Amino acid sequence: MNFAIIGGDMRQVCLAELVASDGHSVSAFLFEEAGSVKGAELKALPCGDAAAGCFGGFDCYILPLPVTAQGGLLNAPLSHREVTLEVLLRAIPGGSYVCGGRIDDEYMALCGELGLRAYDYFKREELAVANAAITAEGAIQIAMEETGIAISKASVLVVGFGRIGKLLSHRLHALGADVTVSARKLSDMAWIEAYGYKPANTLALEGILPGFDIIFNTVPARVLGEERLRLVNPSCLCIELASKPGGMDFNAASMLGLKSIWALSLPGRVAPIAAGRIIRDTIYNILREEGFKA
Amino acid sequence: MNFAIIGGDMRQVCLAELVASDGHSVSAFLFEEAGSVKGAELKALPCGDAAAGCFGGFDCYILPLPVTAQGGLLNAPLSHREVTLEVLLRAIPGGSYVCGGRIDDEYMALCGELGLRAYDYFKREELAVANAAITAEGAIQIAMEETGIAISKASVLVVGFGRIGKLLSHRLHALGADVTVSARKLSDMAWIEAYGYKPANTLALEGILPGFDIIFNTVPARVLGEERLRLVNPSCLCIELASKPGGMDFNAASMLGLKSIWALSLPGRVAPIAAGRIIRDTIYNILREEGFKA
Amino acid sequence: MNFAIIGGDMRQVCLAELVASDGHSVSAFLFEEAGSVKGAELKALPCGDAAAGCFGGFDCYILPLPVTAQGGLLNAPLSHREVTLEVLLRAIPGGSYVCGGRIDDEYMALCGELGLRAYDYFKREELAVANAAITAEGAIQIAMEETGIAISKASVLVVGFGRIGKLLSHRLHALGADVTVSARKLSDMAWIEAYGYKPANTLALEGILPGFDIIFNTVPARVLGEERLRLVNPSCLCIELASKPGGMDFNAASMLGLKSIWALSLPGRVAPIAAGRIIRDTIYNILREEGFKA
Amino acid sequence: MNFAIIGGDMRQVCLAELVASDGHSVSAFLFEEAGSVKGAELKALPCGDAAAGCFGGFDCYILPLPVTAQGGLLNAPLSHREVTLEVLLRAIPGGSYVCGGRIDDEYMALCGELGLRAYDYFKREELAVANAAITAEGAIQIAMEETGIAISKASVLVVGFGRIGKLLSHRLHALGADVTVSARKLSDMAWIEAYGYKPANTLALEGILPGFDIIFNTVPARVLGEERLRLVNPSCLCIELASKPGGMDFNAASMLGLKSIWALSLPGRVAPIAAGRIIRDTIYNILREEGFKA
Repeated sequence: MNFAIIGGDMRQVCLAELVASDGHSVSAFLFEEAGSVKGAELKALPCGDAAAGCFGGFDCYILPLPVTAQGGLLNAPLSHREVTLEVLLRAIPGGSYVCGGRIDDEYMALCGELGLRAYDYFKREELAVANAAITAEGAIQIAMEETGIAISKASVLVVGFGRIGKLLSHRLHALGADVTVSARKLSDMAWIEAYGYKPANTLALEGILPGFDIIFNTVPARVLGEERLRLVNPSCLCIELASKPGGMDFNAASMLGLKSIWALSLPGRVAPIAAGRIIRDTIYNILREEGFKA
Repeated sequence: MNFAIIGGDMRQVCLAELVASDGHSVSAFLFEEAGSVKGAELKALPCGDAAAGCFGGFDCYILPLPVTAQGGLLNAPLSHREVTLEVLLRAIPGGSYVCGGRIDDEYMALCGELGLRAYDYFKREELAVANAAITAEGAIQIAMEETGIAISKASVLVVGFGRIGKLLSHRLHALGADVTVSARKLSDMAWIEAYGYKPANTLALEGILPGFDIIFNTVPARVLGEERLRLVNPSCLCIELASKPGGMDFNAASMLGLKSIWALSLPGRVAPIAAGRIIRDTIYNILREEGFKA
Repeated sequence: MNFAIIGGDMRQVCLAELVASDGHSVSAFLFEEAGSVKGAELKALPCGDAAAGCFGGFDCYILPLPVTAQGGLLNAPLSHREVTLEVLLRAIPGGSYVCGGRIDDEYMALCGELGLRAYDYFKREELAVANAAITAEGAIQIAMEETGIAISKASVLVVGFGRIGKLLSHRLHALGADVTVSARKLSDMAWIEAYGYKPANTLALEGILPGFDIIFNTVPARVLGEERLRLVNPSCLCIELASKPGGMDFNAASMLGLKSIWALSLPGRVAPIAAGRIIRDTIYNILREEGFKA
Repeated sequence: MNFAIIGGDMRQVCLAELVASDGHSVSAFLFEEAGSVKGAELKALPCGDAAAGCFGGFDCYILPLPVTAQGGLLNAPLSHREVTLEVLLRAIPGGSYVCGGRIDDEYMALCGELGLRAYDYFKREELAVANAAITAEGAIQIAMEETGIAISKASVLVVGFGRIGKLLSHRLHALGADVTVSARKLSDMAWIEAYGYKPANTLALEGILPGFDIIFNTVPARVLGEERLRLVNPSCLCIELASKPGGMDFNAASMLGLKSIWALSLPGRVAPIAAGRIIRDTIYNILREEGFKA
């Protein structure tokens, strides 16, 4: 197949190299800063901003994760060139396959209007799970870097038993940590026990908070507010893994002198090759479901 | 609290002993064959068959799992006495708490008519998960008993990644087996990989079937029919863990000379104490949700 | 190569089948009760008791583990025929390679006199380690069979951190048990901690003995005498894995009503195929060191 | 007890704080740069260079690991003051207990002359094992930091099965890596297999070298010379964990464009608190053997 890979960070560079090494033809756009993309041809976008459908000739157009940066621009940190997502989409011929990560509803609608077959690979559950695995490992890396203790003897709390909570507690336990995991549902507590961790109730953490060396939060709701943070051991490291609102009160943590870290977007940062591979696999899954042999 | 525990197998005996050791008052009925029930008083059912509401004086009535044996009889293998579930329910005063396992709709309706507060603990997710953990361990015990190889070197296939599939693959992998798990959803395959097992597609097992020493099926649909069983290594052990219809064709397996075992109801058989503890915990959860301090 | 495999239990039958399946020529002697030995020819011993050097024609003669039964007889439980080891050895031509398990000094000396190149595969460290792995798994099988609890929740003590202690604690911990291991040397305790188990001092077990559901002893010296057994939880299962004198006082255990099991010779009993494979691998190692291509 | 803790890096600061938190009286010397040492009194060395026995009043004098820096100076990176080890030792009254790490023979002899009861805690096996555990974790941290892949999917080789090799392969395997361990002895290979890793022969790595994402060397002899490094995958990360001569040819690695890292003295660098705890525990063991209650 003939792929155009346009914009994004090192993950997309790795993705482009992987797709090329699978034997596909790969043209890479907006990667001037990356130096080189092995196996792929680095190209300039082929036409001026206004020419509809001018960017043809590819079986599949892969856009970055997330597709947009500020101001409707295509997310292209490895290029000096600025292109809006809208202009780019309009340049792609109708009927083309377009895969991007975190595509807003308005752009999805635009793709519909333009007759593009658009897929948001970030919505795929298999990508979410595989990304959670990398995030879990990245969180452990941060914990290793930011503490003077060994994980293998540490007493740790993981708040939340969703994707990241499940895989993070699995790896912490494997390394020898004493792992407590909190959840709200009794059935989650049964799973926590069945996997060999100590279960706790997220709604009633007060009694156990003082006992931890490291606390990882994965719940995107205020579960660690000031009152609870006051109970935490002053030498405890707090790592926030939940997105946007987050679950920790960072102001309170800082006021209390707690070391706290907001570890966002770990896959791209700590393991771009692995992250690129996951996007590649997910796009192949999408294409296979569309009848391609990827 | 004041518990009546009526009928059931060794799990219920263990349950009665555990509830008693927690400091509750326990009266045990229909356990003559058990010899003794530590901490509990072994009693005879208090009144004749027809007296409605005659069996009073308890905060909670615990019935067995499953509640009924053949012919509408209460499931009471450790007693010679035969009582129908209907007669028993009618003897319990209205307003009482009644907990049983696998209560049919008709009996649930009867409980409603009689004003009994009835709960089916077998429907609780936390019990299902905890039972799956014991089932997984029991399946490994059977595999150890029925093969001359070591699990720690064996190449095993687990078909299905539901509750039992998840916990069984976890424990087999922990013991050192080379574990392949098959599922149908891509997201399940991502989980399988994230936990470190080899993923396979349940719909396309043909290519890998010859390579296993032990196959565990957890899917209650015909996934291992004659054609597939023909591909299995003749010295492979097949263990069926799915309920009723099951997923293996046992006739075909026997015709092909494959050693195959239908391992049903493992919790009560291989770990009655653990199984009793799980029922106890679940009933306490139910009672706590009803406002009791159990 | 051309192997004669003479006597022994199901392990040696498996061994003979494995050696045959590796493409060697295998003649099997004294296995009438085994029914068949796949790939090997079942033969009768070729000559009368007194003919020195009459049993020729093989590159390597494999004797059982242990080589001798009572009264100097070759250990051959799958045959009705009785042959003494001495007679057998005298029948093998001088210069032949002979491999047996647990060969007494006197027979080793006899082999020397007869000019046989004799090797005791039981003395090989790689066999001892691999056997310990099977013993560990067998001990877990017994614990599963003999208790009504789940290993994954059990509180267990392993006394001793030799080969079996190391591999048993590894597998118990992997299954989710709460594992305490006792040793005498501080460095062993450091290893125990480094692998994630709880360390204890074998000389000072008194304080912790009441807390266990299962105790495994691997130390062949009286570490669990009557006084200590009195401290054990009455429902605790005691499994003895040490050879001959053993470390538990079985009389005291029985008097105290403790359930105790002497689990001897596990490899041959619980996993003859795996045990046969280990002997095969070890014999190949010996032959390779002698310049053969096995 | 009354401890003097003199010189060393952050490990010794942590050690001083831990000993103080155990309820002992702690005076800390040569730590001006550390800011503070919680629970301990920061003091200046009590007397001029030449006064023999002038530095009295303590039950135990703890020197750093290693005791000496260049030129016979006491290793005291957190102080501007320079003192030679000899001067320090002469200032300590005869009969005192002195514990240091890596004490050269000549200084040991001097301690003898001066009547000091000197112990090298670095020679203690329990310290070596516990340090190996931290080193293993530190090596994993470095691998996470220096690669864009996930350890949990990586194909890794650990060369050598000594202390670090054992604990490193244990943790890599736990994290989900595909772990091959090489050794020279057949018995070590049996251990490697029994723990679930893939065994390889250190003397015959050629065939498998191209397949790894990360190679850890723990053998202090040239096992990875230029010829072998040529076989390594160009994107492979090489981490050297062996001391002084090391086992990798770093010049060749650099010439070949391989990313290679010499990860020395990991305990003090990646986990000073854990490292301090280990020294504390080891010194307590020494003192306990001398009849103290530490």
